Formats: sequence, structure tokens, C-alpha cells
Amino acid sequence: MRKKRLGRQTVALSNPPAVIASANIGGKMEGQGPLGGWFDEWSEDSFFGEKTWEKAESAMQKKALRRALKRAGLRPGQVDFVFAGDLLNQCIGSSFGLREFGIPFYGLYGACSTMGESLALAALAIDGGFADYCAAMTSSHFCTAERQYRMPVPYGSQRTPTAQWTATAAGCSILAREGGGPRITLVTCGKIVDKGITDANNMGAAMAPAAYDTLRAFFAETGTAPEDYDRVITGDLGELGHAIVRDFFARDGVDLGDAFADCGLLLYDRQKQDMHAGGSGCGCAASVFNGYILDQMRRGVWKKIVFAPTGALLSPTSSFQGESVPGICHALCVSAESV
Amino acid sequence: MRKKRLGRQTVALSNPPAVIASANIGGKMEGQGPLGGWFDEWSEDSFFGEKTWEKAESAMQKKALRRALKRAGLRPGQVDFVFAGDLLNQCIGSSFGLREFGIPFYGLYGACSTMGESLALAALAIDGGFADYCAAMTSSHFCTAERQYRMPVPYGSQRTPTAQWTATAAGCSILAREGGGPRITLVTCGKIVDKGITDANNMGAAMAPAAYDTLRAFFAETGTAPEDYDRVITGDLGELGHAIVRDFFARDGVDLGDAFADCGLLLYDRQKQDMHAGGSGCGCAASVFNGYILDQMRRGVWKKIVFAPTGALLSPTSSFQGESVPGICHALCVSAESV
Repeated sequence: MRKKRLGRQTVALSNPPAVIASANIGGKMEGQGPLGGWFDEWSEDSFFGEKTWEKAESAMQKKALRRALKRAGLRPGQVDFVFAGDLLNQCIGSSFGLREFGIPFYGLYGACSTMGESLALAALAIDGGFADYCAAMTSSHFCTAERQYRMPVPYGSQRTPTAQWTATAAGCSILAREGGGPRITLVTCGKIVDKGITDANNMGAAMAPAAYDTLRAFFAETGTAPEDYDRVITGDLGELGHAIVRDFFARDGVDLGDAFADCGLLLYDRQKQDMHAGGSGCGCAASVFNGYILDQMRRGVWKKIVFAPTGALLSPTSSFQGESVPGICHALCVSAESV
Repeated sequence: MRKKRLGRQTVALSNPPAVIASANIGGKMEGQGPLGGWFDEWSEDSFFGEKTWEKAESAMQKKALRRALKRAGLRPGQVDFVFAGDLLNQCIGSSFGLREFGIPFYGLYGACSTMGESLALAALAIDGGFADYCAAMTSSHFCTAERQYRMPVPYGSQRTPTAQWTATAAGCSILAREGGGPRITLVTCGKIVDKGITDANNMGAAMAPAAYDTLRAFFAETGTAPEDYDRVITGDLGELGHAIVRDFFARDGVDLGDAFADCGLLLYDRQKQDMHAGGSGCGCAASVFNGYILDQMRRGVWKKIVFAPTGALLSPTSSFQGESVPGICHALCVSAESV
């Protein structure tokens, strides 16, 4: 009865769903970064033609979904479920971005792990026989996130060296039961991990224990090792968080090697673009996955990867009340082969 | 391949999961209301022994999950997934409430529809063969919601006649592949519906079109009518929203009859308790479902019901920016029989 479950956290999909289409949208910094060529569209205008940054974030989600649907050759009416969420209070980036599409909607909150969570639930919905086509989507915006979590951008606050740069970006994947494209073969659901980090300007350190916890479970439950994958790519740990995860594994005698990467370190040129510890935000992992990563897989450069977006489950209120920062990480195996 | 899907929005579960245990927690107003006898625990202290109302909300979720697990005879390590979310910015009610349990966690944001969304996804995860046991949970707190959406309670703002009262309550269901208890047989996923309501003090009117949209899809896709169910119970439409949904169906020639109820109208004595249009908040539908409703089903008073929690997908920011209020409603059929 429970044949699909490999362990406490990992499910092996019987009929791995294919990522048949994807799209990503970025802002100016993202378009001018090293992955600029892998964006479907990027804008110099951080408002994306809208009157507020929050509306701009919804506009990015709209654009990403429209482009992904077009590429998949689907009308909104053919998509069974959309799984989406974002960082904005009450996830208004998604609800206002999606309201005109009329697609049955399950709203998510996984902080910056949302691309992993949405892909995981979309894959389970298809493999469980409940859907033929699902969309998985998320976004973030530097200016909406700064205003909400820290200070409005026009105040010109100084950023700490451990601070990360919230990506202005959105990404959307279309998953299908049938069709070509890399397949999601394994899904590892994360647990909340809180090691007591209270520095709200050091999200990498707060999320690293969750990334370690989920990746360790993934390797143990699948009986594989980092070297079995062309890349193991976390979401937005940044320079510090990424180094911490590498150290944690080294203590266990596991070398994560050169294949260990992080979307937050890939998205920007940290020196030239003055990005401090790297990129972050739901849109960071979402735009890197739905551009650069899937492209490497479609072109056969990488055959099998682990994609593991990480999220910090804090709010300004919890930090003001002296709370530490719980983290979560959801991992997926994406394979160019079907198993 | 797609045998489980009855229509655009409705899935019929092949092996309907059972709600093997449940628990609910309430505040003073909830405990003193007409359903007070159906609360497992209620507290005169709106802080639940904590220093802040936000921490109190997390404490309610902890208590609800602990009680439900105990009643189910399960340790946290035996639960495959917990699906949870709440109204607080970044859903900290759930993340801080759940962090010590170590259960693989999918975070949701469905506003006040979250009890419906969490039950739906938990049921799909079990029916899809991915889990044996899942928890579905949510909460709300009058004081955290007032401070976040409107004004801090100590300001003593006057409330409009259409205003609803956010329940201070939490509810948790434990779903299982095997075992006794009412079963979730059908799941209808809602679409975002926005009819242009901009009055942030009239959530009932904003959510009514979504409730109508989902319930109409539910009846059409299952080929059933309201009279086929002992109760059709919405989440927190309140007096006005409930009347609007009744009117919408009447225009279609469908009489929702006496069986049409609303958790927001059941939870309080609106006259004696001065509740204006009725109760609201994720905890309203969650505590009424996991207390009164499930008890009626376990005692055989009701054999088959539709449970349809509704949510308003707004934020204070979206309202300040002149946006209307999108709504969503997720519906479930809960049956004492297995089909």
C-alpha cells in the first residue's frame, strides 16, 4: 500500500511527471547578471509598468504563467491545478497574479523554498492520478521584500556583509503526466529545523541546518551520494549558508565536491553587482531553475540533479518578539532519464 | 489514467481517507458560545500563558496537534505530512507551532479556507499512496488578526455592522488510510473569484461569489443537489455572505434549504455576544469542523455533508493600493459511509 514511500521524508514517483515547459522573468539586476541570457524576459523598470512594486510582482507571475502555458501549448482551462505562493504578506503576489486565469488554485507558503514545495505538490498530484497538467510558480521582488522585511528602499539603509539580495524574478514550471522534458523522480519533504539563529540579516546561516537535514535524508533514503548527481543545487543559501552546509557534510565524511551549487551564488556576479552574500527570495531559485538549470538538462549537459530550495520561516513580528529563525528545505531529483 | 477526476475541479477519492481523530482549542468567546461544549479546551486567557498573542496562536496549534495525535494513538514520528497555515504574515502561527514536532511539513496559505485546503491536500496525499497518516491544521486569533488587518485591539476602534469576529481558535484533523471515522470522499479545488468588492469590512460579500462558484461546481460535477446532503456548511461567510450565496442559488432555481449552514453563524450567539455579522478566521471553520461537525457525524446525526471553507485573499497592502478582494473556497464531501 505504501510502496511509493522510500523513507520518512522521500517519495519515489511511480510515473515521474515531466516538466514540459517553463518560463522566467527578471528585473534589471537579474538580466544584467551572469544568467541574463537565460531569462525569457527582463525589465529595466522595477515596476513592470504597474503603479506599485506589489502589483509589479503579480505582473511578473502573470507573465511567467502566460509564457509557460504558451510554450506548453495549453490554455488555462486545461491546467488542473496551480500551486503557487510568494513572500508577500498573505501571498498577494500569487493571488492577484493568478486571479484572471480561473485555474483551480492551492496557495502555498514555504518562504524561499516555495519553488521546491510547488514542484513537489504538483508532481504528487499528477503521480497520484489527480491531474494531467499542473503549474508550479513563485516570485519575489527586491523592493517589496525590503519594505516588508527590513526598510523601504528609498531610506537607503546600509546592508550587512551577510545580507542577501532578494531577487526581482518569477519562475513557472508546467508539469505533465505525458510529454518530453526532464522528469521529477523523487520528492523529499522538509521538516522545520531551528538551530536558534536570531540574526535576521543572516538567512544563510538560519537555513543551512534545514538544507543539511533534508539533503541528508534525501541521500540516506535513496541510498545515493552527492557524486551520483551532476549537480546538487540549493535555493538561496548564499555564500555563508552554502559553506556551512558543505562543512556539515564534511563532518560526516561526505565531500559535496564541485557539483554542489546554489542559485543565490549563480544568479549574480557578487563582486561587480555588490550582492554581499548572494541572491535570495522565492524568485531566486524559481528563475534559476526555470531558465538556466532546465536548459542545462534539456541540452544534456546535466543528466540528473538534486534541486533543494530553502526557506526561512520568520516574519518581522517573530524577530521583534525575540524568536529565532526556523528554516525548511524541500528537495527534488530531476532527471533527464525517466528513472 | 484520469479516472479519479469527475470534472474541472472535483476529484473522487478511490480509497476515501478517514478522519480518525481531531481536536480543537478555543478562546473565551468561543468557549462561552453555543458550541462551547464541543471544544476540547478553551481558555479565559487570550495569551494562553505566552507573552504575545502571536505566540498564543502558535500555542493553540501545538495544543490542537498534541491532543489530536494522542487521540489517534500516534507519535509525531508516525505522521507522514502535516499540511498547515494561518492568517499571520508569513504564517508564523504554523511554523512556530509546528517546529518542535519534526513532521515533514507543507506550508499553506488559503486565508480562511485553510482548513478546507489542508484537508483536501492531506486526503489527496493519502489516496495517492504517498502517506498513511497526515495532519491538517490551522488557527486564528482575534487579537493578532485585528492588529494585522485593522487596528490593535487596545485602540478600541468601532466595528461596522458587516464586520465579522475573527475566532480565537485552532483545529486539527488526523487523516488515515485505514481506521474508523467519517471519510473524505470528494475534494473540489476552488478557483480565485473576484467580483470587485472593495470594502475590507465586508468579507462575507467578497467571499460569497467564490463559495457560490465552488459549490456550483461541486454539485454539477458530482451530479448531486443540496438535498442529497444532511448539511452544506460554509466556513465563515457570516450573515450577509451566507444570504448572498443563498440568493445566487435561488436565481438558478436551487433552494439551499434549511441544511445550508455556516461555521461563522454557528460559533457564536451573535446577539448576546455582539458579534455583528458572525465569526471568521481560519480557526472558525477549523474549530467548528474538528468539534461540533465531526461529533454530529460520529454520532450518526448527519451521514453526509459538504464542508466548504471560504477565504478572502487580500492583505492590508492590497486594500491600501485600491485593489478589490479576491475570494476562494475549497469544498469537501465528508461521509459517515465509505462512498
